[in-house]
Amino acid sequence: MKTTPGHRDDVVAILLSGVDGLREAGCDLYVVSVSTTDDVTIWVSEVWQSKEHHAASLQLPETRAAIGKAMPMLTGEFTGQELTVAGGLGV
Amino acid sequence: MKTTPGHRDDVVAILLSGVDGLREAGCDLYVVSVSTTDDVTIWVSEVWQSKEHHAASLQLPETRAAIGKAMPMLTGEFTGQELTVAGGLGV
Repeated sequence: MKTTPGHRDDVVAILLSGVDGLREAGCDLYVVSVSTTDDVTIWVSEVWQSKEHHAASLQLPETRAAIGKAMPMLTGEFTGQELTVAGGLGV
Repeated sequence: MKTTPGHRDDVVAILLSGVDGLREAGCDLYVVSVSTTDDVTIWVSEVWQSKEHHAASLQLPETRAAIGKAMPMLTGEFTGQELTVAGGLGV
């Protein structure tokens, strides 16, 4: 996702604010990263126990509040890729 | 990366074959995933302690052997994105 200029760190803080509840919501991995080549691009990589766990997490009041708070600082330019984890280290 | 038809699982197996040595090489996270919408696309998400750790890992004999083994099964179509991790769960 891309933020409006000057708001990347605010959005990163919002994205990281809900980390404590993620594991019990069925999330195995949640990595918030920023571009090394611009000041507005944020990448979030997530691994969930199931599609349903992820979908349910989006309905949680705290998730909805965080999305509402971040939205005005985002350009609306989103890309996403759904994948199936085959294995590795740390997953 | 994309594999030639029918070789995705072979390449996934090669990518996962070196997982045991990754942590001592300075790798914190290594996730091999496959597309849910085609049979030839593989994504690898990695978090390294430093750029230098990653660069050094590419010179290891076992890494070079794995790359040599996988190469004939790849189309050559690679994309990559270098990022800085801001935080999260599992990193």
